[in-house]
Amino acid sequence: MPDWDPRIAELHQELDKHDLLPLWTQREDLMPTHPLPAAVPHRWRWADLYELAARAGELVPVGRGGERRAIALANPGLPNVPHATPTLWAAVQYLGFHEVAPVHRHSQNAFRFVLEGDGVWTVVDRDPIAMRRGDLLLTPGWAWHGHYNTGDAPMAWLDGLDIPLIGALDNEFFQFGPDTIGDRTTPERSSGELLWGHPGLRPLSAPRDISTSPLSAYRWEHTDAALTAQLELEAAGNPHAVTCPGHAAVRFTNPATGGDALSTIRMEMHRLRAGARVPASRESASSVWQVFTGTGVFHLDAEHVEVGRGDLVAVPSWTEVAIDAMDELDLFRFSDTPVRERLGLYLTDATNPAATGGTAR
Amino acid sequence: MPDWDPRIAELHQELDKHDLLPLWTQREDLMPTHPLPAAVPHRWRWADLYELAARAGELVPVGRGGERRAIALANPGLPNVPHATPTLWAAVQYLGFHEVAPVHRHSQNAFRFVLEGDGVWTVVDRDPIAMRRGDLLLTPGWAWHGHYNTGDAPMAWLDGLDIPLIGALDNEFFQFGPDTIGDRTTPERSSGELLWGHPGLRPLSAPRDISTSPLSAYRWEHTDAALTAQLELEAAGNPHAVTCPGHAAVRFTNPATGGDALSTIRMEMHRLRAGARVPASRESASSVWQVFTGTGVFHLDAEHVEVGRGDLVAVPSWTEVAIDAMDELDLFRFSDTPVRERLGLYLTDATNPAATGGTAR
Amino acid sequence: MPDWDPRIAELHQELDKHDLLPLWTQREDLMPTHPLPAAVPHRWRWADLYELAARAGELVPVGRGGERRAIALANPGLPNVPHATPTLWAAVQYLGFHEVAPVHRHSQNAFRFVLEGDGVWTVVDRDPIAMRRGDLLLTPGWAWHGHYNTGDAPMAWLDGLDIPLIGALDNEFFQFGPDTIGDRTTPERSSGELLWGHPGLRPLSAPRDISTSPLSAYRWEHTDAALTAQLELEAAGNPHAVTCPGHAAVRFTNPATGGDALSTIRMEMHRLRAGARVPASRESASSVWQVFTGTGVFHLDAEHVEVGRGDLVAVPSWTEVAIDAMDELDLFRFSDTPVRERLGLYLTDATNPAATGGTAR
Amino acid sequence: MPDWDPRIAELHQELDKHDLLPLWTQREDLMPTHPLPAAVPHRWRWADLYELAARAGELVPVGRGGERRAIALANPGLPNVPHATPTLWAAVQYLGFHEVAPVHRHSQNAFRFVLEGDGVWTVVDRDPIAMRRGDLLLTPGWAWHGHYNTGDAPMAWLDGLDIPLIGALDNEFFQFGPDTIGDRTTPERSSGELLWGHPGLRPLSAPRDISTSPLSAYRWEHTDAALTAQLELEAAGNPHAVTCPGHAAVRFTNPATGGDALSTIRMEMHRLRAGARVPASRESASSVWQVFTGTGVFHLDAEHVEVGRGDLVAVPSWTEVAIDAMDELDLFRFSDTPVRERLGLYLTDATNPAATGGTAR
Repeated sequence: MPDWDPRIAELHQELDKHDLLPLWTQREDLMPTHPLPAAVPHRWRWADLYELAARAGELVPVGRGGERRAIALANPGLPNVPHATPTLWAAVQYLGFHEVAPVHRHSQNAFRFVLEGDGVWTVVDRDPIAMRRGDLLLTPGWAWHGHYNTGDAPMAWLDGLDIPLIGALDNEFFQFGPDTIGDRTTPERSSGELLWGHPGLRPLSAPRDISTSPLSAYRWEHTDAALTAQLELEAAGNPHAVTCPGHAAVRFTNPATGGDALSTIRMEMHRLRAGARVPASRESASSVWQVFTGTGVFHLDAEHVEVGRGDLVAVPSWTEVAIDAMDELDLFRFSDTPVRERLGLYLTDATNPAATGGTAR
Repeated sequence: MPDWDPRIAELHQELDKHDLLPLWTQREDLMPTHPLPAAVPHRWRWADLYELAARAGELVPVGRGGERRAIALANPGLPNVPHATPTLWAAVQYLGFHEVAPVHRHSQNAFRFVLEGDGVWTVVDRDPIAMRRGDLLLTPGWAWHGHYNTGDAPMAWLDGLDIPLIGALDNEFFQFGPDTIGDRTTPERSSGELLWGHPGLRPLSAPRDISTSPLSAYRWEHTDAALTAQLELEAAGNPHAVTCPGHAAVRFTNPATGGDALSTIRMEMHRLRAGARVPASRESASSVWQVFTGTGVFHLDAEHVEVGRGDLVAVPSWTEVAIDAMDELDLFRFSDTPVRERLGLYLTDATNPAATGGTAR
Repeated sequence: MPDWDPRIAELHQELDKHDLLPLWTQREDLMPTHPLPAAVPHRWRWADLYELAARAGELVPVGRGGERRAIALANPGLPNVPHATPTLWAAVQYLGFHEVAPVHRHSQNAFRFVLEGDGVWTVVDRDPIAMRRGDLLLTPGWAWHGHYNTGDAPMAWLDGLDIPLIGALDNEFFQFGPDTIGDRTTPERSSGELLWGHPGLRPLSAPRDISTSPLSAYRWEHTDAALTAQLELEAAGNPHAVTCPGHAAVRFTNPATGGDALSTIRMEMHRLRAGARVPASRESASSVWQVFTGTGVFHLDAEHVEVGRGDLVAVPSWTEVAIDAMDELDLFRFSDTPVRERLGLYLTDATNPAATGGTAR
Repeated sequence: MPDWDPRIAELHQELDKHDLLPLWTQREDLMPTHPLPAAVPHRWRWADLYELAARAGELVPVGRGGERRAIALANPGLPNVPHATPTLWAAVQYLGFHEVAPVHRHSQNAFRFVLEGDGVWTVVDRDPIAMRRGDLLLTPGWAWHGHYNTGDAPMAWLDGLDIPLIGALDNEFFQFGPDTIGDRTTPERSSGELLWGHPGLRPLSAPRDISTSPLSAYRWEHTDAALTAQLELEAAGNPHAVTCPGHAAVRFTNPATGGDALSTIRMEMHRLRAGARVPASRESASSVWQVFTGTGVFHLDAEHVEVGRGDLVAVPSWTEVAIDAMDELDLFRFSDTPVRERLGLYLTDATNPAATGGTAR
């Protein structure tokens, strides 16, 4: 920048009048040397969340318009918006005994992850899907869906959506369906599972191209077995079965393509042996973690955050993350990594060209 | 063609002398209006096959050089070559009590399908994989493999390979490994299954690009459940769960990509309710079927062939096939369809441009 | 929503205290029935832009820190940020006689499009690329680049980047290179063009996987010829040569893949015959247009905007756009469509399920 | 194999009677350690070919049934079939002044490469395409095509097809079109070129999915310029512009995908500076080369074959090939490499696991 010159101030005013802005005063903000998120690392306690959700259960009805009794994590770094990270929406949804969440559909991709309870069926494109502890249920963009609680108690679960991303892109579409759900059957397994829930098997009746996962539910029984198997293989002498010592993990995928189960959200389940550590790393992606069982410590840049059952942690892009398991620790995680990968933008501190000696040409 | 002219005969001789051949005398043979395979539809009886394999079991040792006690289906239309179809090799392999088939590897892709028996482990890239009734086991090209029989009886199974295709392409590579297998552990489940045998779940420890299926075994328990589920869904009112009335079917796929489990061979399991029919169709692909259970009739162009447990049927390209199930009929099938699809060549009588009114331009 | 209840207000305060926000008060804003962009359709006049850029040329030096003398379009609907649309940055860059823009690189993807003038070379990964009227020049993310003006006059051009998108994703990386450019050769054609600028030809020396376009420059000579050919084919009786009557258009692609030349930005050139009309349509994508030659009218929802040489128009997502050409009208266009397509989000009013009779299930 | 035993001979007879063949007597032939093609490396002299084609021009009419006056290279190692290699058909086609080759279409993929002459138009899906020295013209599978000679002299060119591959797969489809071609316009450039022959530019009017190249002709002007540019870049100090010192080369690709122009045949043009050498290598693919200009020596395993203008050389799979250019040498080459790559079978002596220390597991 030159010495300040009144003619420059005048030019800047003139630019402003013409809906123009100079780069030279903003370059550093627009193009920092690495991500400087406004979002901050943050933990929400499950006890608080659940108690507030239960209060809402008494006060706020579920119905047309509001559509869902969901309470969203609002990152303290992103004031007045219900964004856990700049791309991800995360909420606790609470459905009382005999309540019904009305049918709608939207372009936003969604999943449900169940920390505890049962008795609710989510109906996705007419297929009723039981929701139980540890299960992951999908609602890909533009699928019709509603929920009903047939159990004898309220139920609360985690909803994850790409609402902030779709909003940033002005890509929202929404349509109302029926106000209630007539047929409240309670099948053990959904059609999606019956057709697609067999390892490595594709039904010949399926259409040729399937871009979103036709597997409507990923059951805890399978997730648990997969994690158990990895740790057993490690214990039996195969270090390649795990991502690092004592750290098993699976990604939830579309069985028709092997890719992420949703096009904009990656979902994973992690298990750390008591005492294991996920070593520190950074990535150009944001994520939200929920503790399924166990206790541990998240090291987020300079902060150290203790977590226990149900607690949620938001991790902005390029935050350094390390995790210590105090006892055996099961963690559900979702992130916007597929967005970065599909756009050719994903970097980690291991692959960052600036960090790895790429030199000026 | 012109009236015959001695100068033309002379020209043809001259061409021959120069290692040249005229198109005008051969065009119809080289470019028929539709495939005219030399291979013929053919059935082999399991009783014959098994009896001859058992005799071989007494007379022919298994060992280095011959490598395997395998007896191949030789299509009567393809004399002197052990080709079930022009691209597929199919054989019964027989391994006696305490025998070992030595370790080797080759560029040919292979699978084993087990009609009956147990007690054999196939070791693929050091991973011992139990072989039991109804299981499909993979040996992708260039994987090391050997077998050992720890049971108290001989065991026979179906081997399928792309030997004729790889031969037609001059693409064979082969390497000897150890003559025997030292470590004869008998794990219930292989590492491949432990890591990849969970529906929709991908281990995070896996390498990024996986072109051949890492799922080493497709267990009968899962295949059976998938077929059962499709027929139950159909019975419950969902006609899209099956490919046609009373006909359930699954394809064995690579869980990392959703594509065929082997790059050159498609494998499927079919179940027909008693009385169901697979309607007549043609495709530009060849296949081999094996009856797993039940009895039925294959209609192959003008022939009607009765089949029962273990019987094998070769179906050349563009043969019209229909199948009637006399009682509940389970059929294993493998074909060279992926070769056609990957090369942009696959046609059925429903998609054949000549048949569907493509007009001359 | 229930009748207002003081306990609900109290609950909302409690939520706020815990960094939580209820969905039921915000659902309509978060999930509207179709996109409701804050950005507005807007036109910037080239005469204003150029005059202000020239003034900046006198007052503001180019150099380290500010890096570029670029003036960005600031959408009036998006206050205080230099965003033409929520994903796209568009600016006029101005480089005086003998000036040098210093070398840097960044994760943001960039292109330059030249309305007028010549004499500047942009050096991308050490390859000097001449910039001339009608040319499109690429700077894919993380390529080193600087510019020098060897002509006898200042030069101004359009810069397009994905700065807002990369910012919304917290995916910025930036690195300084040398402050100046030593070697100021002025080759007619860059190495990228010499290797890749031949239709349908791929150099065998190229690496196998090429995700961003290796073709550094798309010359006006080729673009003009392609547009001319389409209109000639249409005139000769081939209506399929154009997208609609009198409307020729090309997309700038990566010759190694056929896909978009940049992973996040689609670039196109359009030509309308005098009197031709691009009929009204909406898409879930935002774009910026620049008039290269001619005059016309943009119909943007209810507004009618006259445009002439050099004028720029920002079109937010889901804006209805129609275009009338007063005389032969050449338009450069860039958009964020690849982002939508790669994420499975792209919709037009022709493909919107809500508009096309998708019914509630 | 055991000591010979009459019971084994009897078993073998019994197997034969049941259309079965034992592996143990054939394993080495079926699964050699590397390809042992029956096809042999062979050279055909252009002078011979052209003289015989001209004689055929006098004696053999072109017309319905025989369809084309084409003389095919018949590999001496593959008796009685017109196969240059086990997958590739190569022929000289000869069309006299004012002759017409009738319209037909077939599933086989085809191209024409023009060594010399002009005056013929090939009409592919109604688009007349001029054929001139150095041009490559495509006829993808199932496209209608015929040819007419409007020049004042006969014309001969190289035809390349995948006839042997399609035959080995029993995948032939063929349909007759009109016996003659009514409209004999002689446009300089075909519609395919007008739409797609601009570097890096895709017409917006094109359909979304294009699996075979829409670029009907690759003109010598462009091919020559691309080769020239690579050698100039090398001379200017860029060793990465060429594949090895003095060796420029381009692949003919589908501009809509960047992949091979035909799904089963790779086509390339090579230029060696006088004195340059292509070093020895092997690949699991077969190919045919034609000298366009210059003289050189092909080293094929132990043989050394001199070649000059128009001469053709067949190279079976896994043959070691090196090439020396005596003077500047332009070589057209086509191969079945895409078949191997698409099936995951392609190996070179540099990537062969057996050769590169893959060890037994």
